[in-house]
Amino acid sequence: MIVARVRRTIVARDLFGPGDKIVVACSGGPDSVAMTHALGRLAEPLGVSLVVATVDHGLRPDVQRELDLVRDLAAGLSLPFRSLRVEVATEGSLQGKARDARYEALLGLARSEGATRVAVGHSQDDQAETVLDRLLRGASVRGLAGIEAKRLDGVIRPLIDVRRSDVVAHLEHHGLEFIEDPSNQDPRFTRVRIRRELLPKLAAEDPAVVSHLAQLADDARATRALVHRVGQELLAAARRPGGLDAAKLAGGDAAARREALRCFLEEATGAAPRRAHLVAVDQLVDGAGSADRGPRGEVRLPHHLVARLDGKILTIGTRLDSWGPNPREE
Amino acid sequence: MIVARVRRTIVARDLFGPGDKIVVACSGGPDSVAMTHALGRLAEPLGVSLVVATVDHGLRPDVQRELDLVRDLAAGLSLPFRSLRVEVATEGSLQGKARDARYEALLGLARSEGATRVAVGHSQDDQAETVLDRLLRGASVRGLAGIEAKRLDGVIRPLIDVRRSDVVAHLEHHGLEFIEDPSNQDPRFTRVRIRRELLPKLAAEDPAVVSHLAQLADDARATRALVHRVGQELLAAARRPGGLDAAKLAGGDAAARREALRCFLEEATGAAPRRAHLVAVDQLVDGAGSADRGPRGEVRLPHHLVARLDGKILTIGTRLDSWGPNPREE
Repeated sequence: MIVARVRRTIVARDLFGPGDKIVVACSGGPDSVAMTHALGRLAEPLGVSLVVATVDHGLRPDVQRELDLVRDLAAGLSLPFRSLRVEVATEGSLQGKARDARYEALLGLARSEGATRVAVGHSQDDQAETVLDRLLRGASVRGLAGIEAKRLDGVIRPLIDVRRSDVVAHLEHHGLEFIEDPSNQDPRFTRVRIRRELLPKLAAEDPAVVSHLAQLADDARATRALVHRVGQELLAAARRPGGLDAAKLAGGDAAARREALRCFLEEATGAAPRRAHLVAVDQLVDGAGSADRGPRGEVRLPHHLVARLDGKILTIGTRLDSWGPNPREE
Repeated sequence: MIVARVRRTIVARDLFGPGDKIVVACSGGPDSVAMTHALGRLAEPLGVSLVVATVDHGLRPDVQRELDLVRDLAAGLSLPFRSLRVEVATEGSLQGKARDARYEALLGLARSEGATRVAVGHSQDDQAETVLDRLLRGASVRGLAGIEAKRLDGVIRPLIDVRRSDVVAHLEHHGLEFIEDPSNQDPRFTRVRIRRELLPKLAAEDPAVVSHLAQLADDARATRALVHRVGQELLAAARRPGGLDAAKLAGGDAAARREALRCFLEEATGAAPRRAHLVAVDQLVDGAGSADRGPRGEVRLPHHLVARLDGKILTIGTRLDSWGPNPREE
C-alpha cells in the first residue's frame, strides 16, 4: 500500500537513484519497520542496495527484543543487518544526545559500508507535529520548514509523504511485527501531547490538517531558500570595511534585510540571534522604532557585544559601558 | 493602558501622520469602543482629526442601542458622529456580504468627508485567530500573512498589536460601555470555536501563542512581498509571444517559479489557481512528476482550459478533447 507512495516520494524529491547504497535505520518501531519493508520491495526495481542497521543506545530495556526483531525482518527480506552500539552521556537532554549519537553512528556506518544515503522513518504525521511544535514555540516562516526530506549529509526520509495511519495499515496487511517505544506514550513530552491531544482537536475542524501542515513545511522550505539567496546577495552588496552599509540594507526588501542581518549577527556573535535582538538591529538599520535603541543608536547583544551605527556603517563591537537599554523581549 | 501600545503601532507601522483625517469605525463592540477611546486620546498629540462612524446593516435587533452607545461615546470625546445605513442582499454568505457592504460604506464616507484613513478595531487575537484559521484550511506561506495593518485603500488597524485581554482591561479601567455581538458566542462559526476552544488549548502549551502567531503573520507578509517581487521579475523574464519560456522558469528558485506561475495562471484563467493545478503546472515546467500529466504533457485547468508545453513554451489554451487525466487533488 505505502510502497507506491514511497516510490513517488523517492522520484519527486530525488532522494536517490540507481547505484546508490542505502543504510536503512530501523529501531523496530512501526514507522521504521514499514519503511524497511517498503524499501526492501523497491530496492531491485530502483537498482539500489540496502543495509539494515539498528542503533542500541544502551538506554532501553527492550533492546534485545528490538535487535532480534530487526535482525529477523532483515533476514526475511534477504538484507544484510548491522547492529551499532553507542554510548550516550547521561547529563543534559537525553533525547537530544541520543539522537545526535544515533545519526553520528549511522553516518559512520554509511562511510564504512560505502553507502551514499541513510534512510530514517519520519512520516507525514511527524512533519505536521514538528510544524505545530514550531508554531507553538514562536517560529518564523524559516522555522516552519520542518524536517527535511533530503539532507545535505545524505540522511533521507522516504516516509515523509506517508500518513501514520497508512503505515499502520501496511504493517497489518503484511503481518509485520514491531515494538512501540514507550516514550511515545508519555504525556510529559510536548510531542506526545501534540500528537494525542492537539492534532486530533485541529483535525476535528479540518480532517486534512496533517497534510496541510506538511504542505506548508514544503512551501516554507522553498520560500526560505529564496529568502536566503536574496538575503545573501544583499549582505554581499552591503559589506564595507568593518561592517555593513546601513543605507544599502535599508533599500532592500524587508524580508531580505532581516535575513542578511540574521546571517551577519550569527557570523559576528557566533550564535543564531534571538528574535528581539534581530528586530532591534533591523529597526536600527531601518531608522524606525527609536524606542528600542539607546541614546546613541545602539542595540545591546549577548556577550557584552553591541550593534551600533558609526555614521552610515552598522558595526558589531564590544560594549564599553552599561547604560543602554536592552531591546524589549516580545 | 493600550494608548501607549497603539501609539507605538501607529509609528512603527506608519499607519498615519500629522494632518491625516480618520474615519473611526465603531460598532459598539469592545474592540472598536476601546479603539475609538484610544484614538480620541491620541488625536491631538498626533495632529490628526477623527470622525466616528457606525454602520447599520439592518441585520441586528440591538441596532438602536448600538447607535445610541456610539453616539454618546463620540459626544463624550467631543468627536463628530455619523451613522451609515446599508442594505445587504440576504442570499449567499451573509457575513461576507455584510463585511463588504460595511467597508464600502466606510470608504465612501471617508471620500465624502475628505478623510485619508478608515480605522477598524481588529486586535492581535483576531490576527492569531485568522492565522490559525488559514493553517487549518491549508494555507501556504502566502496565506499566513493574515490581516493587514495598513491596506492600500486606507483601511488601518491600530489595535493589531494589542491583546484582547488588554482591550477588556482598558474598558474596565475607563468604565467604558460596549455591546457584545451575539454571533461572537455562536459555536456554529469556525472562528468562535477557534477563539473559545482551539487557541486556549494551544495556549496551555505556550501562553505566548497569540503573539507568536501574530509575529508569524508579520514575517509571512514581508516574505510574501519578497517572493512576489522575485516571482514578478522571473515572470517578466520568461514572457514570450503566446506563453512563457519553460527553461527560463525552471532555472529560477522553486518559490519564485511557483509565484510566477500563480500570477500567470490567475491572469490566464481569471481566477486564483487551486493548489493542485498550480503544483501540476509547476511539475510540467520543472520536468518532474510525470505521473501528474497527460500523455502529451498537459495539465487540465478549470473552464475547459489546458496548460501545455509547445516545444519549450508553456501555453494556456482551450481544451479540444477530454482524454487527459485531472491532476490529483491532494
